[in-house]
Amino acid sequence: MTFRATVLTLYPEMFPGPLGVSLAGRARDEGKWALDCVQIRDFAIDKHKTVDDTPAGGGAGMVLRVDVLAAAIDHARAANPAAPVIAMTPRGTPLTQARVRALAAGPGVIVLCGRFEGFDERVFAGRGVEEVSVGDIVLSGGEPAAIMLLDACIRLLPGVMGAASSGTEESFENGLLEYPHYTRPAEWEGRTIPEVLRSGDHAKIAAWRKSQSEIDTRSRRPDLWEPYEGARVQPASGARRKKKDMDQ
Amino acid sequence: MTFRATVLTLYPEMFPGPLGVSLAGRARDEGKWALDCVQIRDFAIDKHKTVDDTPAGGGAGMVLRVDVLAAAIDHARAANPAAPVIAMTPRGTPLTQARVRALAAGPGVIVLCGRFEGFDERVFAGRGVEEVSVGDIVLSGGEPAAIMLLDACIRLLPGVMGAASSGTEESFENGLLEYPHYTRPAEWEGRTIPEVLRSGDHAKIAAWRKSQSEIDTRSRRPDLWEPYEGARVQPASGARRKKKDMDQ
Repeated sequence: MTFRATVLTLYPEMFPGPLGVSLAGRARDEGKWALDCVQIRDFAIDKHKTVDDTPAGGGAGMVLRVDVLAAAIDHARAANPAAPVIAMTPRGTPLTQARVRALAAGPGVIVLCGRFEGFDERVFAGRGVEEVSVGDIVLSGGEPAAIMLLDACIRLLPGVMGAASSGTEESFENGLLEYPHYTRPAEWEGRTIPEVLRSGDHAKIAAWRKSQSEIDTRSRRPDLWEPYEGARVQPASGARRKKKDMDQ
Repeated sequence: MTFRATVLTLYPEMFPGPLGVSLAGRARDEGKWALDCVQIRDFAIDKHKTVDDTPAGGGAGMVLRVDVLAAAIDHARAANPAAPVIAMTPRGTPLTQARVRALAAGPGVIVLCGRFEGFDERVFAGRGVEEVSVGDIVLSGGEPAAIMLLDACIRLLPGVMGAASSGTEESFENGLLEYPHYTRPAEWEGRTIPEVLRSGDHAKIAAWRKSQSEIDTRSRRPDLWEPYEGARVQPASGARRKKKDMDQ
């Protein structure tokens, strides 16, 4: 089954962009995923092809009209009916690797990209749109975020990464940051590869990597460390861990 | 002064990608920012132009060599000496709007994009590289994240957004999510614009928007809400708020 990505945007010329190159580009050439871009402006209802209007209540910028957005979503859904509709917005739920895995295991995704001040809020409930954020920053539009979301999904599609990398020993897959990597040369500007990694002792290497993952997660990302440690010290209940999985 | 973005990548053909279109593309045409792409492979030291090698200690995938990366960084720094060097990696510090603002106010940025399993860890301390993450997901490479980082910076450069939108009433600028937006039509499929937004009473509208920001932040992003509320109920000390600003 081909993973079908439909992007609703005012700038279809931004796609496939980086998704046309390297891993994602090859996967698309091989039919492992397909990309349709829908120009939101085609669903404007007046002769001037207006897609936005001034914010109700005043303020700067322009807001994308709900009727135009809904018509574009309805069109996309007709062609890709089983795919969830996701709007890229800083007001959304932060994207997680678990959500990416779930999307990659499904039929595809319809991604709604905003510009200007944002979307008319009524479109989310009116069309069952999931609001997703890719970080606590503000972009000029949803397109760079959509590219990131699709890249994260595409690499997980069957056959895309190949046997070399299963994607299971990576940051966030077990609730931790990944351990640090090293490769030749063994010494560089006086900096050496940790001795244990050159020991050939696979059990010791695995233990060192797990320990490094934990140390780095605790110091760099206490927000990830706390739920991980909570689940680890109370393995009997497991409640906190399960809740986290469900939220994602 | 032109904001100078230097991207170190194995796929320079991914750039400018979406940054060549719309707001960022026009700003580049107007000289408000400049983009240099540096091919990391040009700094390989053997005749096969090898940039990676197997991970020390074993495991899947390939790791980018520290000597090659360091040579590419040294080259980029010579041309853009005052810019910080940022590596896009899921092991990094989560990117914030405060960091984006600081970068946009500076001379530019050198962005290091990884592929494969990642970077040899020694490059970060060896070359003073800041590790930054754009979300708790794993990408096929740093390029989509670099595009997101640059897009967020470019829109804040002087004259890019114009007078219409100052960027000060947006998500994360005051520690909260932005309030929801609405525009015409006043009624759509039985859903109406909140009455207060049609009242013309600017004080009431401002109060409603602030309240909606708080309600949505509390329910959607308790991780943002807690430090905000902590700073609000203890204005005398301000310690928690200050610490957050510093971390960013």
